[in-house]
Amino acid sequence: MAGATALATPAFAFRFRQTAPSIDAARLRNRLERLSYHGRAPGATFADGVNRVAYSTADLTARAWIIDEIKGADIVPRIDPAGNIFARFGGQPNQPPILFGSHIDSVPTGGNFDGDLGTFAALEVIQAVQAAKMQTRHPLEMVLWAHEESTAFGIGTAASRIVAGDLQAGDMDRVWNGMKRSDAIRRIAGDPDRIETAVRGKGTWHSYVELHIEQGGTLDKAKMPIGIVEGIVAIHRYDVVIEGQVNHAGTTPMNERHDAMVAAAQLTLAVREIASRRQGRQVGTVGRIAVEPNSPNVIPGRVTLSVEFRDLSEQVLRELGDAVKARGVAIAKETGTSVVFTLASTNPPALATPGVQEAIGRAAAASGLKTMRLPSGAGHDAQQIVRLCPMGMIFVPSVGGISHSPKELTTWEDCANGANVLLKTVLDLDQRDSI
Amino acid sequence: MAGATALATPAFAFRFRQTAPSIDAARLRNRLERLSYHGRAPGATFADGVNRVAYSTADLTARAWIIDEIKGADIVPRIDPAGNIFARFGGQPNQPPILFGSHIDSVPTGGNFDGDLGTFAALEVIQAVQAAKMQTRHPLEMVLWAHEESTAFGIGTAASRIVAGDLQAGDMDRVWNGMKRSDAIRRIAGDPDRIETAVRGKGTWHSYVELHIEQGGTLDKAKMPIGIVEGIVAIHRYDVVIEGQVNHAGTTPMNERHDAMVAAAQLTLAVREIASRRQGRQVGTVGRIAVEPNSPNVIPGRVTLSVEFRDLSEQVLRELGDAVKARGVAIAKETGTSVVFTLASTNPPALATPGVQEAIGRAAAASGLKTMRLPSGAGHDAQQIVRLCPMGMIFVPSVGGISHSPKELTTWEDCANGANVLLKTVLDLDQRDSI
Repeated sequence: MAGATALATPAFAFRFRQTAPSIDAARLRNRLERLSYHGRAPGATFADGVNRVAYSTADLTARAWIIDEIKGADIVPRIDPAGNIFARFGGQPNQPPILFGSHIDSVPTGGNFDGDLGTFAALEVIQAVQAAKMQTRHPLEMVLWAHEESTAFGIGTAASRIVAGDLQAGDMDRVWNGMKRSDAIRRIAGDPDRIETAVRGKGTWHSYVELHIEQGGTLDKAKMPIGIVEGIVAIHRYDVVIEGQVNHAGTTPMNERHDAMVAAAQLTLAVREIASRRQGRQVGTVGRIAVEPNSPNVIPGRVTLSVEFRDLSEQVLRELGDAVKARGVAIAKETGTSVVFTLASTNPPALATPGVQEAIGRAAAASGLKTMRLPSGAGHDAQQIVRLCPMGMIFVPSVGGISHSPKELTTWEDCANGANVLLKTVLDLDQRDSI
Repeated sequence: MAGATALATPAFAFRFRQTAPSIDAARLRNRLERLSYHGRAPGATFADGVNRVAYSTADLTARAWIIDEIKGADIVPRIDPAGNIFARFGGQPNQPPILFGSHIDSVPTGGNFDGDLGTFAALEVIQAVQAAKMQTRHPLEMVLWAHEESTAFGIGTAASRIVAGDLQAGDMDRVWNGMKRSDAIRRIAGDPDRIETAVRGKGTWHSYVELHIEQGGTLDKAKMPIGIVEGIVAIHRYDVVIEGQVNHAGTTPMNERHDAMVAAAQLTLAVREIASRRQGRQVGTVGRIAVEPNSPNVIPGRVTLSVEFRDLSEQVLRELGDAVKARGVAIAKETGTSVVFTLASTNPPALATPGVQEAIGRAAAASGLKTMRLPSGAGHDAQQIVRLCPMGMIFVPSVGGISHSPKELTTWEDCANGANVLLKTVLDLDQRDSI
């Protein structure tokens, strides 16, 4: 086939096109607004956000509607055994597809952009190519990952994780909210009995690109429309147990207390100080805390809390962990308590492939949009798929850096810019045999 | 009646006695051990403490057994409409009784001395007087207050409070653990329909004395067998609401956070510092804390916590409250949060009557026991009854200062010493027309 070699030249993609391909910003907005009804409380508005936790009724009705939208675009959706929705268009049969997409499940009090934007932008990419009557070398494949937020079953990026090969005996037996995970997956038309066939190998895809809201305030503050993600940070999470001595809050003099809450307070401030004092973008958080017996008139005898550090460098994370553990020893001594750290989980960093980062940079430049490079502090399905193929992520600004909240907001202009950069990145990657 | 004037002389009480009255230490210990079975877990021992929350089945069976013990001492128990058990012995009919006693209800993980000791010591006082064949001027009246711990219905000293006149419309309608308070009182043979007749006036009693474990470590540390309570401290309790900004723990840089937990940690340490830095016995505690959304990967947006200060002086409490509120303003500014204090409850101090304190001092001296004066940091039924008559409290040491815990311990020797000092205090007060 003569075209097979010609395809490798940058000019090829524009060979048959009638107009420069572009996404339909009005349709993108309309779809985001229509999706917001799935998981919206009665009487609420778009600004009130959504509760569309994976496997909920809202998730199910949203998925059914999106499947109709995909079919309406004359492409055929396919649901894999993990419940992920794929839909492929065009390309040469001997070429691996370029994959792009995101997710539509939310945290319980979520917003209307996290995941949703990247999902509909993916459909826009295919529809833009269709409208421009373009032929691409690689099939274009959109994906809606079934379960990204860690609310459901306490596991984040759970469905892309399976595709990337992370599947263990008993995974389907996990129970959450009285629901077995296998039954949850059946609810979304997955097939837990054949779950191992959801695992895909290296070479399945040419590359993976995900458009997502930043969720932090870096782009918004810098007034940058496009962020090129350097990688998704590693996470080290500790469970800390502080044991003091329960005692009567009225009868125990201040200097005879072994107050576990006082130790927890010192540790909380130590985490902030240790994460803040060095150069870099590392962060440290005490997000969960439980006090026992938790009564106003009883000196806390036991506190459990979480300490989480994130950075692109695992070496930095080890140093932060060592520093806070050393502080824990000093706090235990000063407060007459014991402070015990357990490394509860570690997520390795997922570095974005340089060639995909460069493609995003070219795509943004072609659109006249300024860019900056930044890490992703949040987890994304892209961190799983990087195990299978080259990966890149495009960020657009979150107003005020707010996410996982009804107040989450990205302007319609930034949404459209992001979708167009995704489109151009895909078309750029389509020209490249190796990345 | 010739004796009526003679009674006023200190020598009188010993007029008819055969032997110097003394409590039966072995019987006291035996009763404390037998009581411990009511509320003990299956297979547990005395050292495992009790769960005998007011109105529980354990409380009911314990009360039934104690009523039998009282009847066995040839005195007639009477249950008032609030469920308090009274039993009176001897004295002249025109004299107000001397009242003494305590409670047997416990916190959920309680020990075997808090309240129990004072209750059985009261029965010992009557039995000692009976055994000595003494006649007292004033009737001797023991009391078992029905509901002292604040576990039940969230109200402490709830039954003595009614006797002292603190009764409001709707009090009986309160619901706790699915049980209406009126029904709870019916369970213990009280009469909620006539609850207002449980209220007693000034002049009902000549005086009130309560023996109790210290619950703090002051006597134990000073190796003092007897404490003379100066008064029961006042309590100022604040509910504090800290509002920050919920945000993603991975995507929000350290310097852009409005972390409500960081503010709560600073406030917790401020409470400790403010309560510790001045002379005196004031204490300050953050015992309850709730974090929202309380997830390891989310920056806390809201924290509510309790701040409690205790001291004999309400002026000191106001100063402590002002200091911590001022610190709250600074913390709010530094952390970018709002910190709002609400004074949730205040308990006034209850000062022990000097004449009763002196009687306790004489009683201890007559037993060759050293004493020290100290405040009570815990609440007691005595703080209610001081509204009706002169009041005093005797403390015995708590080993290691531990209470409200299975580890709560007072040696049998200290128990017996305390009961004998209670006996001698009652006999001393019996000689006095005015205190």
